[in-house]
Amino acid sequence: MFRNFKMVPCVVFGRGSFNQLDDILAEKRKGSNSWLVFLVDDVFKESALRDRIPAKSSDLFLWVNVDDEPKTIYVDDLTNQVKAFTKGSMDRLPGGVIGIGGGSTMDLAKAVALMLKNPGSSADYQGWDLIENPAVYHVGVPTLSGTGGEVSRTTVLTGPEKKLGINSDYTVFDQLVLDPELLAGAPQDQRFYTGMDCYIHCVESLTGTYLNTFSQSYGEKALDLCREVFLDKGPDSDDKLMMASYFGGMSIAYSQVGACHALSYGLSFVLGLHHGIGNCIAFDHLEEFYPQGVAEFRKMMEKHDIRLPRNIVAGVESHKLEKMIDVSLILEPLWDNALGPDWKSIMTRDKIRELYQKM
Amino acid sequence: MFRNFKMVPCVVFGRGSFNQLDDILAEKRKGSNSWLVFLVDDVFKESALRDRIPAKSSDLFLWVNVDDEPKTIYVDDLTNQVKAFTKGSMDRLPGGVIGIGGGSTMDLAKAVALMLKNPGSSADYQGWDLIENPAVYHVGVPTLSGTGGEVSRTTVLTGPEKKLGINSDYTVFDQLVLDPELLAGAPQDQRFYTGMDCYIHCVESLTGTYLNTFSQSYGEKALDLCREVFLDKGPDSDDKLMMASYFGGMSIAYSQVGACHALSYGLSFVLGLHHGIGNCIAFDHLEEFYPQGVAEFRKMMEKHDIRLPRNIVAGVESHKLEKMIDVSLILEPLWDNALGPDWKSIMTRDKIRELYQKM
Repeated sequence: MFRNFKMVPCVVFGRGSFNQLDDILAEKRKGSNSWLVFLVDDVFKESALRDRIPAKSSDLFLWVNVDDEPKTIYVDDLTNQVKAFTKGSMDRLPGGVIGIGGGSTMDLAKAVALMLKNPGSSADYQGWDLIENPAVYHVGVPTLSGTGGEVSRTTVLTGPEKKLGINSDYTVFDQLVLDPELLAGAPQDQRFYTGMDCYIHCVESLTGTYLNTFSQSYGEKALDLCREVFLDKGPDSDDKLMMASYFGGMSIAYSQVGACHALSYGLSFVLGLHHGIGNCIAFDHLEEFYPQGVAEFRKMMEKHDIRLPRNIVAGVESHKLEKMIDVSLILEPLWDNALGPDWKSIMTRDKIRELYQKM
Repeated sequence: MFRNFKMVPCVVFGRGSFNQLDDILAEKRKGSNSWLVFLVDDVFKESALRDRIPAKSSDLFLWVNVDDEPKTIYVDDLTNQVKAFTKGSMDRLPGGVIGIGGGSTMDLAKAVALMLKNPGSSADYQGWDLIENPAVYHVGVPTLSGTGGEVSRTTVLTGPEKKLGINSDYTVFDQLVLDPELLAGAPQDQRFYTGMDCYIHCVESLTGTYLNTFSQSYGEKALDLCREVFLDKGPDSDDKLMMASYFGGMSIAYSQVGACHALSYGLSFVLGLHHGIGNCIAFDHLEEFYPQGVAEFRKMMEKHDIRLPRNIVAGVESHKLEKMIDVSLILEPLWDNALGPDWKSIMTRDKIRELYQKM
C-alpha cells in the first residue's frame, strides 16, 4: 500500500514573486468570508518587507513570536484570537490564513488554519490522520529554507506531553509563494542550521529502509543542491536553497527521517532547542550511523565557520534526561526507517542515553 | 510575472500501486454522478491488464485507438459517446474520467474531461487559457513514460488547421497513479522514442532563455535519470524512467521546449508521425543548436540499436512542405525560448525549409 501523496496544488516561484501575493489572494476576498489572517514572524516588525505585505484594514494581522518552537498552547491562543475576530459566528471564518516566516511560522499558519475548522485543542491532534475537517485555505510564504515544511503534511508542535506533528492531508498548504529574495536577510548561522535540516533529512531518507525511486529522485537532487549551496556557494545560492528545501520536503513522501531527527526532538522538548540547531548537535554524534553524511556535514560547518554548542546535556537532571529518551522513543517510524524492524534491539534506552550524554 | 503553477494535487507512486486505483475511485462513486468513464489504449485488449481495470457494469468503458495522434474530431466523438451515455442530462455527467495508456491516451482523457464541461468543439480551445469551466475529475495512469503529459497543463491535439495543445490549469489531472510495473510490456523502440521526448525537452528547456532555478532543478535531475536509464540501464530502469518523465514535465513550469519540438509538430501534422519519433528525427539534425545534447542522444541511439527513418521529407509535395513550415512557425514561444527575442531573423522560412529537407 503506497501513500496517495497530497501535494501543494499551486506554486509560484521566482525572484520578486512576493509582489504577486495580493493578486493571488484577490480570489479569496470575494464572497462572505472576505477577510484574511496574516501570521508574520515578528523579526520583520522593523523590516522593509512589512510595508509590502498586502494586508487590508478588514484583515487580521498578527505578529507571531517564534523564539520558542511552536507550542500547542500558542496555536490554541492564536486560533482563539482569530475566532474572537469573527464575533462568534462560524460563518464569518476568514477566507484564508497566510503565514510569512521560517519553518515555525509555516507550522503556526498550518495549525491555525486546521484548528479554525476542528474543535478542541491542537494537542488533541498530534499524531497521524486525526484531523476530521479540511482546513481554511492557507498560504505559505517562506523566508528561511530547509525544513521542507512548505510542502509537508505535518505541522510540528510541542504539546504538554510530546513534540509531535499534526500529520494530515489537510495540513498541506493550498498555495506557496517561493521568492528567493526573501531569504536575503536571514542571519548566517540560522540560515546554516535551517539549511542543514534539509541536508540531514535527505541523508536520513536516502540511507533509510523506506525509500523508493520517487523519494530517491527528490532526495538526491536536494542533496546535490545543498552541496552547491554550502560547499560551492556559487551564484543563485538562495534560489537553490529554496529548491533544495522544496525537493527535500517532497522526498519525504515515500520515506522518513531517521535517527538524527528522533534524537533532535528529545533535545528540543527538554532543552527548548530549535529544530535546526538541535539536528546539527545530534548529527555531529551520529558518525556510526551516517559516516559519509557526517563527514560532509563537518566540511560544510568548517566552510561556514560554524561552532556548535558542546556539553549541553552534561548538566541535565536525570529525570529530564529520561524524558528526553521517552520523547525520542515515541518516534517509532523514524527508528524503523533508520535501523529496520529490529531497531529496538539496537536503539535501547541505554544506547540513546549514551548518545545524549556525548552531546 | 511568474506563472502560478498548477500541480497534480494527488500522486501515488510505486510498483503495484495500480491495485489501489479502485480504492482511490471509491470516493467518486458516491452521490448522483456515481459512474465513471475509462478510456484505455486498445493495445491492452488482449492483455492481463485488461482484467485488472476496476470498471463496474454501470461505468462506460471505451477502448481508444492511438495509431494516429489524438485529433480534435476524435475527442469530440468520444465526448459525444459519453454525453449519449448520460441520456442528455448534464446532471448525470460522470464522476470521473480515467485514462490508461501512453501520452496520447493521457491527452484524450484530459481533453474529454474538459469537453464534457465546455461547449463546442475541442478545436475551439486549441491555444492558451481559452477553457472557461473546470473539467470533470480526471485520473492519469501512464503505461509509457517520457512525454511529461501526466503533469502538464496541456493536451496536444491535431485540429483541422494546426497541431496545438489546449493549455489550461483545468487540463491538469486531479490524480496520478504511477506504477512502474505498467511500463514492462511496451515495445522497445516505442519506449525509446517516448523516453527521448523527455530527454529532448529537458535539453531544450535547460539551454533555453526562459529557465529559472525551479525548472532547472527538475530538468537537471530528469536528464540525470534519462542517462541512468538509456546509457547505464541499471536496475529500476522503469521506475527511473517514470520519474524522469514526471520531473521533465515539471521542468516545463518555468521554461519551454524549443526548436526540436517546434519542427516535430510540423512533421506530425503533415506526415502523421508520432510525437516521439518525430522529435528524434528532428533532433538528429539540430547539432547546430544543441551540440552536446545531440551527441549524447546519438550514443543512446547506438546503445539501443535504434535506426531512424531517413529522407522522409524528400518526396513531400511543395505545398505540404510549406504547411509544415507554417505549423512550426505558429509555435512562437518555443522559438523565443530556444533562440531569444530575435528568433525571427535566425529561423526564417528558408532556414526551416532547409532543416526539413535534410530529414
